[in-house]
Amino acid sequence: MAQKPSIPKGTRDFSPEEVLRRNYIINTLRHNFELFGFQPIETPSFENSSTLMGKYGDEGDRLIFKILNSGDYLNKVSEKTYESKDSNALTSEISEKALRYDLTVPFARYVVQHQNEIEFPFKRYQIQPVWRADRPQKGRFREFFQCDADAVGSDSLLQEVAFVQLYDSVFTDLGLKGTLVKMNNRKILSGLAETIGAADKLIDFTVALDKLDKIGEEGVVKEMLTKGITEEAIERVKPIFNVNGSFAEKLSLLKELLVDSETGKQGIEELEYINTKIEALGLKTVALDLDVTLARGLNYYTGAIFEVSAPEGVKMGSIGGGGRYDDLTGIFGLKNMSGVGISFGLDRIYLVLEELGLFPEQAIKGTRLLFINFGENEALYCLKAVQSLRDAGITAELYPDAAKMKKQMSHADKRNIKFVVLAGTQEMEESVYTLKDMKSGEQQRVSIEGLIEALS
Amino acid sequence: MAQKPSIPKGTRDFSPEEVLRRNYIINTLRHNFELFGFQPIETPSFENSSTLMGKYGDEGDRLIFKILNSGDYLNKVSEKTYESKDSNALTSEISEKALRYDLTVPFARYVVQHQNEIEFPFKRYQIQPVWRADRPQKGRFREFFQCDADAVGSDSLLQEVAFVQLYDSVFTDLGLKGTLVKMNNRKILSGLAETIGAADKLIDFTVALDKLDKIGEEGVVKEMLTKGITEEAIERVKPIFNVNGSFAEKLSLLKELLVDSETGKQGIEELEYINTKIEALGLKTVALDLDVTLARGLNYYTGAIFEVSAPEGVKMGSIGGGGRYDDLTGIFGLKNMSGVGISFGLDRIYLVLEELGLFPEQAIKGTRLLFINFGENEALYCLKAVQSLRDAGITAELYPDAAKMKKQMSHADKRNIKFVVLAGTQEMEESVYTLKDMKSGEQQRVSIEGLIEALS
Repeated sequence: MAQKPSIPKGTRDFSPEEVLRRNYIINTLRHNFELFGFQPIETPSFENSSTLMGKYGDEGDRLIFKILNSGDYLNKVSEKTYESKDSNALTSEISEKALRYDLTVPFARYVVQHQNEIEFPFKRYQIQPVWRADRPQKGRFREFFQCDADAVGSDSLLQEVAFVQLYDSVFTDLGLKGTLVKMNNRKILSGLAETIGAADKLIDFTVALDKLDKIGEEGVVKEMLTKGITEEAIERVKPIFNVNGSFAEKLSLLKELLVDSETGKQGIEELEYINTKIEALGLKTVALDLDVTLARGLNYYTGAIFEVSAPEGVKMGSIGGGGRYDDLTGIFGLKNMSGVGISFGLDRIYLVLEELGLFPEQAIKGTRLLFINFGENEALYCLKAVQSLRDAGITAELYPDAAKMKKQMSHADKRNIKFVVLAGTQEMEESVYTLKDMKSGEQQRVSIEGLIEALS
Repeated sequence: MAQKPSIPKGTRDFSPEEVLRRNYIINTLRHNFELFGFQPIETPSFENSSTLMGKYGDEGDRLIFKILNSGDYLNKVSEKTYESKDSNALTSEISEKALRYDLTVPFARYVVQHQNEIEFPFKRYQIQPVWRADRPQKGRFREFFQCDADAVGSDSLLQEVAFVQLYDSVFTDLGLKGTLVKMNNRKILSGLAETIGAADKLIDFTVALDKLDKIGEEGVVKEMLTKGITEEAIERVKPIFNVNGSFAEKLSLLKELLVDSETGKQGIEELEYINTKIEALGLKTVALDLDVTLARGLNYYTGAIFEVSAPEGVKMGSIGGGGRYDDLTGIFGLKNMSGVGISFGLDRIYLVLEELGLFPEQAIKGTRLLFINFGENEALYCLKAVQSLRDAGITAELYPDAAKMKKQMSHADKRNIKFVVLAGTQEMEESVYTLKDMKSGEQQRVSIEGLIEALS
């Protein structure tokens, strides 16, 4: 009967310490989301397959986990399909539901389904797991949390301004200094492609450009040439490969380059608006930069594009990103609903905080005081103190058995419990408790009030 | 392309107000679990099918949601199985993973898998969704949260005492008065069956007894007779149908009845121990009672059985329950690991708090202050105040567009935002903000500090 227990590849068990640390990040996100007026929603873990399929491209469709229909599911399969023995064809007849692949499509579905109950503009946040049948590898899991904040029903650029401030507020609260919010705008990328006569090659152009920090200028030029972008065109765009200086200086360069592109100029205007507001309001921790090579999910975004880099020196890709998409809910029949949103990469932020030792001690504090159990009467005496401590909000426990002293002390030690209480007949007679600091070994005799004071 | 969006039956979208209220309950649980020394763990949403199948009986197996293998899954199916066109047989060849059905089996799996990292006794809590392919009906969902606290690796009855205190602490914090924690013990049920010579009919006996409050004494007697329990035996057990009085008085009656059963006497002793400790320590809100008809998942529990009833007058089944099971991890090969645990019914507690109007206002408070947007300059002026308010922990927003005043006021109204700020040229000149109470209509001109003070 005994099975060697394991979990599916790409999934994780989280230990108490990990859960407490993850919750520390999640609580910081929640607090800031709510402070900025975002309201939480939650959607089901599985959606009707028709809601998800076709929304993420062919590759996405393949990576969606499908749920088998219950009961005698083969009963409903047509003979023709069954005989074809084609997995794809069979799937649609034996599976009607699928696990959430991201939070954006379910959010769009939610907005359309509940449009009559929602007061727009609607700012929502959502922190829930998603599932992808990706090949698991270091840092890539089949189940992971997404933490998204989006605003729909407003095309005001003040939303973008607020998102930069939100990043700033969260990373400040997490004590994470040196993060960089990079911004770009789809209209600038379109303008550049248009200006060099490669408007029809926008995707190829931006995909190549996006690789600048990985493959260098030479590599980018090579890839563009391969894709049929002319040498002359590339020459015109070369200034952006080495653009330096402040946000405003980069904008100046772009203004020269994009002087003939209406779209490009609009992109510049939008970025200028956002940067001016942020400069007037100030940021606490985060730096804002313009990165003209930034593309991310280009097909998706129609305006602003955001990406956050971890502090220099920490080897980690982006720890957040987002952008504006002018037609979020069109796929579900609600047109002209502009949305803009950002997400926070929980797993990566976790690794960065861990690497930099930034988890505060109180984020992972468990039980702080263990009462040693010397037997029936002593246990009851201790339980009364335990109760008073809990009433005062202090986590305390009594060891459940009158086990050997050594075993109980070792239990406290292994669980990193800082204090133990030793209370025997003598203490009971005097209505005191002997409090011992596990680290220093120091002991003192105190009343219940003294215990509360010592641990507060 | 447009689809009418919907969600699978038995699942739910949660609106902002619902999420905030659910989180209020969950945070109260978390806080108390941690106060009592329980540590959080999280396990994957899906487990290997072999971990779950066969653990919940045939009916359970049917209700487990299976996940279809990815890719060309039919490739691995044997010809023989495929030809049989038998759903059950095919499932095991096209599905290797299944969604979590409860939190207990994954916890047992976790304990065995991580036994070398865990310091025992191990007290864990876990708050995560589970999925069941049950027929959806009022109050029964296909996706719902379980909130469990369990202690493994200790057979001390002080664990049971702590669980009664934990129920008391949680319901006190939730402001829910009048809940009743009913206790029983499997050994008492065994003792009764033994005493009346129906030890071989323990399940039939307890299943019938468990229905006392639904079908009455007559119904129970009838069912017992049907199951082959003799009239004489039933006569001997009849006193327990109408047992009244205090916990201790009920124990006295049982002592008489079970005088010849060693098992029964042990059950009495255990309950007496727990009751004595609880009487010495006192409870704040919860009442503790002995309910000799309480059976719950009898096959599962080996000692204490808990169940919590909502306050009288609220029509709701149990809002929590649990018990002791002497061999939690045996199914995964780790023997003699006693466990005892309780769970809280999140959905039902939600309904009870809602019915009794017990959700505190601050549990659902969203944005408290909306700045009306009169245009570019005014917006920036307001954003500076918004930032100061957020720094002070006050949720404030600026309406993103300079829309018509009426529209903006209506937005504040629909979102139940209590205050708006009106700040035009005059306010800017004087460095003040006009704060308006949406309910009373009262207005006052205040500085940023004044805003913070008014909203603190």
